[in-house]
Amino acid sequence: MKLKIINPNTTQSMTDKIGQCARAVAMPDTQIVAVSPRMGPASIESHYDEALSVPGILDEVLLGEQEHVDGYVIACFGDPGLYAAREVARGPVIGIAEAAMHAASMIGTSFSVVTTLARTCNIAWHLAERYGMKRFCRNVRASDLPVLELERPGSDARRIITEACRVALAEDQSDCIVLGCAGMTDLCAEISDATGAPVIDGVSCAVKMAEALVSLRLSTSKRGDWARPLPKAYTGLLAQYALG
Amino acid sequence: MKLKIINPNTTQSMTDKIGQCARAVAMPDTQIVAVSPRMGPASIESHYDEALSVPGILDEVLLGEQEHVDGYVIACFGDPGLYAAREVARGPVIGIAEAAMHAASMIGTSFSVVTTLARTCNIAWHLAERYGMKRFCRNVRASDLPVLELERPGSDARRIITEACRVALAEDQSDCIVLGCAGMTDLCAEISDATGAPVIDGVSCAVKMAEALVSLRLSTSKRGDWARPLPKAYTGLLAQYALG
Amino acid sequence: MKLKIINPNTTQSMTDKIGQCARAVAMPDTQIVAVSPRMGPASIESHYDEALSVPGILDEVLLGEQEHVDGYVIACFGDPGLYAAREVARGPVIGIAEAAMHAASMIGTSFSVVTTLARTCNIAWHLAERYGMKRFCRNVRASDLPVLELERPGSDARRIITEACRVALAEDQSDCIVLGCAGMTDLCAEISDATGAPVIDGVSCAVKMAEALVSLRLSTSKRGDWARPLPKAYTGLLAQYALG
Amino acid sequence: MKLKIINPNTTQSMTDKIGQCARAVAMPDTQIVAVSPRMGPASIESHYDEALSVPGILDEVLLGEQEHVDGYVIACFGDPGLYAAREVARGPVIGIAEAAMHAASMIGTSFSVVTTLARTCNIAWHLAERYGMKRFCRNVRASDLPVLELERPGSDARRIITEACRVALAEDQSDCIVLGCAGMTDLCAEISDATGAPVIDGVSCAVKMAEALVSLRLSTSKRGDWARPLPKAYTGLLAQYALG
Amino acid sequence: MKLKIINPNTTQSMTDKIGQCARAVAMPDTQIVAVSPRMGPASIESHYDEALSVPGILDEVLLGEQEHVDGYVIACFGDPGLYAAREVARGPVIGIAEAAMHAASMIGTSFSVVTTLARTCNIAWHLAERYGMKRFCRNVRASDLPVLELERPGSDARRIITEACRVALAEDQSDCIVLGCAGMTDLCAEISDATGAPVIDGVSCAVKMAEALVSLRLSTSKRGDWARPLPKAYTGLLAQYALG
Amino acid sequence: MKLKIINPNTTQSMTDKIGQCARAVAMPDTQIVAVSPRMGPASIESHYDEALSVPGILDEVLLGEQEHVDGYVIACFGDPGLYAAREVARGPVIGIAEAAMHAASMIGTSFSVVTTLARTCNIAWHLAERYGMKRFCRNVRASDLPVLELERPGSDARRIITEACRVALAEDQSDCIVLGCAGMTDLCAEISDATGAPVIDGVSCAVKMAEALVSLRLSTSKRGDWARPLPKAYTGLLAQYALG
Repeated sequence: MKLKIINPNTTQSMTDKIGQCARAVAMPDTQIVAVSPRMGPASIESHYDEALSVPGILDEVLLGEQEHVDGYVIACFGDPGLYAAREVARGPVIGIAEAAMHAASMIGTSFSVVTTLARTCNIAWHLAERYGMKRFCRNVRASDLPVLELERPGSDARRIITEACRVALAEDQSDCIVLGCAGMTDLCAEISDATGAPVIDGVSCAVKMAEALVSLRLSTSKRGDWARPLPKAYTGLLAQYALG
Repeated sequence: MKLKIINPNTTQSMTDKIGQCARAVAMPDTQIVAVSPRMGPASIESHYDEALSVPGILDEVLLGEQEHVDGYVIACFGDPGLYAAREVARGPVIGIAEAAMHAASMIGTSFSVVTTLARTCNIAWHLAERYGMKRFCRNVRASDLPVLELERPGSDARRIITEACRVALAEDQSDCIVLGCAGMTDLCAEISDATGAPVIDGVSCAVKMAEALVSLRLSTSKRGDWARPLPKAYTGLLAQYALG
Repeated sequence: MKLKIINPNTTQSMTDKIGQCARAVAMPDTQIVAVSPRMGPASIESHYDEALSVPGILDEVLLGEQEHVDGYVIACFGDPGLYAAREVARGPVIGIAEAAMHAASMIGTSFSVVTTLARTCNIAWHLAERYGMKRFCRNVRASDLPVLELERPGSDARRIITEACRVALAEDQSDCIVLGCAGMTDLCAEISDATGAPVIDGVSCAVKMAEALVSLRLSTSKRGDWARPLPKAYTGLLAQYALG
Repeated sequence: MKLKIINPNTTQSMTDKIGQCARAVAMPDTQIVAVSPRMGPASIESHYDEALSVPGILDEVLLGEQEHVDGYVIACFGDPGLYAAREVARGPVIGIAEAAMHAASMIGTSFSVVTTLARTCNIAWHLAERYGMKRFCRNVRASDLPVLELERPGSDARRIITEACRVALAEDQSDCIVLGCAGMTDLCAEISDATGAPVIDGVSCAVKMAEALVSLRLSTSKRGDWARPLPKAYTGLLAQYALG
Repeated sequence: MKLKIINPNTTQSMTDKIGQCARAVAMPDTQIVAVSPRMGPASIESHYDEALSVPGILDEVLLGEQEHVDGYVIACFGDPGLYAAREVARGPVIGIAEAAMHAASMIGTSFSVVTTLARTCNIAWHLAERYGMKRFCRNVRASDLPVLELERPGSDARRIITEACRVALAEDQSDCIVLGCAGMTDLCAEISDATGAPVIDGVSCAVKMAEALVSLRLSTSKRGDWARPLPKAYTGLLAQYALG
Repeated sequence: MKLKIINPNTTQSMTDKIGQCARAVAMPDTQIVAVSPRMGPASIESHYDEALSVPGILDEVLLGEQEHVDGYVIACFGDPGLYAAREVARGPVIGIAEAAMHAASMIGTSFSVVTTLARTCNIAWHLAERYGMKRFCRNVRASDLPVLELERPGSDARRIITEACRVALAEDQSDCIVLGCAGMTDLCAEISDATGAPVIDGVSCAVKMAEALVSLRLSTSKRGDWARPLPKAYTGLLAQYALG
């Protein structure tokens, strides 16, 4: 099967890393295509960034439909554009926060999210509520690292995040850690070793979840909210988004 | 004070109607500016439409900041882009679903929302939850009218919506009705007369709420989530959205 | 329009202060009448005091109906008698806790309440739940000041409350502060300046909310719970409360 | 032990009936004193009636403290003044809605409340929430009988309520029935026989609950909200309520 | 009446203590039979232990039905097998966590549970949710004592638990304490004296609750979930559990 | 990898069917071992049956640990013994209700469960709450078929369940169907074809979920509730369950 992993920001080094981690867990016959959108923000650290990442994500999904993609992963912990993407994709679409939180709830009674900037914590709480995972989420903790610091060679990110995970496990008395940014995907095994606790990376979880749904021939129900959008006029900069 | 009412779709007749209704309830010294964005969908009837209306809304807010706007109203019942707009506006930003639901909760123990297409009902439920208004919301009912049918001269919309409100009051045993689309703003008084129940229009409520907050010198807290977004690169079609 | 602000306790200095703050934010053509009831407790600091403030509040509402009052504000943070008052008033009735919490939820993702004695914190939590505002309320904090200490010239109340607000913002990581007593209404601007955070006073919010609802011709729905009470015999001390 | 059963309305025939039912289930050495207050409404069918029944209830509790009462039951399904009464009583105070709902939750997975007028249904829902019993409450159903119709010789109340219970069991698929008015206390056994389902009367449940707590030497905690009210001035009609 | 108190573990000294405490609060004409099951774990400190205590509990209930038992108490704070027992018993079945939490909610606005090992805290939280008591439960605190340490002559358990209760009252600002293990039943009065707060023991509460329900002729509804199980084949070690 | 699918009842024909469906969706290198326990009920249709199925399940997990099993599926829609099994298994353990509900929440905004007897509906609701899936679950509907009717050659089960699914989709307006019994696993594709809606079978979902977790090297956290049980004495019929 063919899975498209959309990193909603335009930072190619992060996209490459995400693609690599996705391939590492995919089944042998799964083809992973990892992309950044053709437009949008270099990183997502606000509602503003998140909202403006969505046109680029939808552009990639519309392209993906022509490329015979079987399933999609949206690889940003805010799961931007998830519902809109489901409306236009034939196959399943999974968000990495969604996949990570669901997985966490099956291996522990509680989890803590460790994310980047404090201002994004509420977004994670909102998703936990939307997915029904609030009862498992003991805390969402910021490491105060900007997203792109994770990409800077020589940064201290690895140490800071590991330490934030340690504190989370001790203070929140959580059973496991959910990494709250796609850019942390490569730290998963290392932090698990360092802390002795299960550490959950949304990118790899979402790949397995998408594979599972595609294998089971389960895709977005088109009976309700997520039916294909009605055709209508789109104007200005976004005229290209009009659906036939 | 100067309030900007942003109709997130590009249908000018609806924008005109919204502006008119806003002016009818505004204080004498309030200047109402009602606009449609320079880009985006002709109507909003899906998550896809909603997501793609946001760049146009944010464009109008960024313009508004240069135009010395004191407060904003987002005049679509899905309250698209509300949080992103709050991050970039100095003054308060109010969504019409938000304003209508809050007002309803102060004059009744319960309300029913009467909206357009069934596929948008979940969006209203989601907002009711987000605003804490789920406990007051007895039902969200679709009239099965597309948004633009409300703009078509000679359409049967008026009768159909009035009837849907009647049924809602009888079957849901709700205390009042919340109209679930900005395009219904002009029907408010009429349906209230026809049903004998309070009927709440989000556009006029949001205007009064925005006036109230501006009068009280209360605006979006910049201490947390809704602080101004960090400056960063934006590329492609959306390059113009990079903040200084 | 004519708004009656009922301070449910019998302390006239507090009533005067409340009236003054209400007038400062009212529209030019709004007439503010601020009163204390003809009976009841000097301050409200328990369920007992609260319950026994209600006959005096209802007395003022019944009088108000003869005085052609357009809307009412109940100016005690426990919102005593709110639903009973709605049953007998023609116009809208707003509680100050209700108004403050709703306003807070439109300008921040979270608020902390700073109130007087610890024993009243649960009342505030109960109201937050009733109004759907629990999801925004991070904490209710007592300053351990009795209500009337706010009225005592030379008291240290101003400093103590400002400090409690500072601590709330730091420890609760809330976006804004809700002042939890009508007697703090005059401290609002000062504490906002001192802390740099939005500080919300229920008295002024409730005045604007009542003005908004009266302007919109929205009043308590009489379809359900809050219909006018049935006529019946009342005996003893309370015989005067029998409705015609 | 000595239990005081306070029927918050002034209708003596109902008080007599309540006293009789209380005595029928009390332990041999329990002394039941059933009273109506010296002031207040003839029946309680609104928030207004309920609020104005509280001074009479508190008067009886203050008297009861001098009469060496060990525990109290508030015998109106709205549990009026429950928290205020707890503040001034040494022994436990139990509401009949509270007792009935708790008992129901221990013998079934769900219950339906059958009450009098539709306008009081919300009060029952509110109590269900307050006591944590909302998850067990499938429905609150009005029989559309005014409270005093239950006292009128020759009324059809018995038949109407039995029928409402039958419908509740069938339509709500509830495990048991909670009778939603103290005036129904004498119908409990009969309706249980007629429907074959457990039917729960709050008066008798509250008597047993009060007996249990007194036997266990458990009474209202005075550590928090329900500590004795602070002494303060009371004026006007209610001057007598000032506590020493 | 005849009540059977089932201590789900096989430790006879605990069963004896439980029986003694039950007898101390029972009505004069209540016969208390306290038993340990004929099979199962010596103490219950995990989901595994809890699950494997249930066959022994059900065995005792099936025996009890032949012994003309009128009501049952399951005397382990996890309330194991409560619903299964209700299916096969004619009379009411009460769990000690259930009884204690309900009682606590009638004498305080909040409680803290003090239990044995940290790994059982989640079980208590889960029960608090199931019974609707989560809103009253401020905290569940472990004393880190294994269950059987409570039975060891010369152990320091008494002091450690009293201290844990003190800390709970101070830090959680709870109104009262719920003892989270049947083995603590004899400490109730002493800790109440030491802390000055109401301390609630589930064993004695459950006895009074069972007495109350039996007196009121209220028993498990057989209309729904808790109807008698259908007859069917049981094989292997558990063949004896097949119902006729 | 080696997955053990435990059908908690002792009906071999159902176990065979479950094994077949599991193998049909498993990855080529996954070895599926499907078993019935050595003891317990022929079908699970009550809390009593469910509780008594758990010793048999745990027996199979303890055996599985010696058989080098990598992950487990508990194939009964009540997910009996799930938490106890997690305490004693090294690899992940997944319940079929858990897996089906999680999958449903990723492909639709709502689902209806169609199950066997009405008396088990509450069990499904309870699981939906436990897993955080209540917000997605619109209804749990009984088909009124006993479990073993699904195994009877010539039964009308297939038609009855398909019809119940049709009704669920129409009346609940759900996006998809969750089959509420492991014995329905073979009907999944057929009902999906007949109704045109996604139909979700827990057995196949749980297999894919277990495969995913094993692939990701994620297993039950041993930091909290689900740590290995402490060693202790077990007596009587269950003496064999004592852990070393």
